[in-house]
Amino acid sequence: MKVLVVGASGTIGKAVASELGARHDVITAGRNSGNVVMDLCDRSSIVAAFKKLGTVDAVVATTGKVHFGDFAEMDDEKYRIGINDKLMGQVNLVLIGRDYVADNASFTLTTGILTKDPIRYGSSASMVNGALESFVRASAIEMKPGLRINAVSPGVISEAMEGYAPFFRGHDPVPAARAALGYAKSVEGLQTGQVFEIF
Amino acid sequence: MKVLVVGASGTIGKAVASELGARHDVITAGRNSGNVVMDLCDRSSIVAAFKKLGTVDAVVATTGKVHFGDFAEMDDEKYRIGINDKLMGQVNLVLIGRDYVADNASFTLTTGILTKDPIRYGSSASMVNGALESFVRASAIEMKPGLRINAVSPGVISEAMEGYAPFFRGHDPVPAARAALGYAKSVEGLQTGQVFEIF
Repeated sequence: MKVLVVGASGTIGKAVASELGARHDVITAGRNSGNVVMDLCDRSSIVAAFKKLGTVDAVVATTGKVHFGDFAEMDDEKYRIGINDKLMGQVNLVLIGRDYVADNASFTLTTGILTKDPIRYGSSASMVNGALESFVRASAIEMKPGLRINAVSPGVISEAMEGYAPFFRGHDPVPAARAALGYAKSVEGLQTGQVFEIF
Repeated sequence: MKVLVVGASGTIGKAVASELGARHDVITAGRNSGNVVMDLCDRSSIVAAFKKLGTVDAVVATTGKVHFGDFAEMDDEKYRIGINDKLMGQVNLVLIGRDYVADNASFTLTTGILTKDPIRYGSSASMVNGALESFVRASAIEMKPGLRINAVSPGVISEAMEGYAPFFRGHDPVPAARAALGYAKSVEGLQTGQVFEIF
């Protein structure tokens, strides 16, 4: 399979590229690195990348920024960061990518444990993850038959604990290589409309 | 209690005003009707309404527009309708209202069954509902102690079945008066961070 991994330079992205690269032709994409440039916040950049790549069999997104901050200081603008980037960036990857992928292609998006298990400063991450998970469940049933879509919801990643530990006390960190299995399940399996929780 | 019901002219809003009005002082708000004018898509209108009302003990939102449409025709702009209205309208009601409410006030937002149980044309509703439910879980733990927030997630409302039936085949409709009980549980109980599913 020809598998596009958007956000391949990140901790999860690298692990996904490694897991899937063992069996498939992985094309890496990112804002500033990878085989092809793709900025999910710029729809013309998504279109340009797909036109350049030709048909792919699987699209994986392991990217998305949200604003972490004290709820007391959160406002409309700060929530819009996550809405524009992690939520609509990944959604636009699907909305645009569906016209360029193979007949039986899959989309695999990234959410995270904060959907269900919130932390201090994480209200925007929770919001965006919840939006993506329900979007995945709903879009899966309406997609062109043959196309699939799932999300992987990893716990806090072991390799990121150096910076994240103070915010994720009590969380059991997940090695990126284990989170990557969720993406393999989505890409190489047949399920659709699922959220694979890896935590 | 002084209870503000935003969207009080809608099917659910009327039932909530009736349920809570039996025991509390209900103030109705809406874009074009009610005791006070409030347009959740216009933050200055939210501020103006709270300044006019003085301290309230409970804030209920039973309003929010999303675009229903074939997933094949959904695009960024169509998803933004629900994000700007049902999602950020209700979120901004909380972000602004928290500075005007009583010390032990509650916020009660409205989501819906499509978070979990998607229908054709409903991907935006699902997305927005999922976002709100995770926002409620996350903001509840970070709110100023004493303040509470919950969501009510009703099934399709019996009174709305005339128009909605073709899209909700197989769904068991919920009378608005029964959905209203979820709002009473949130306003008059002590739970926080919950999604009360009425379906």
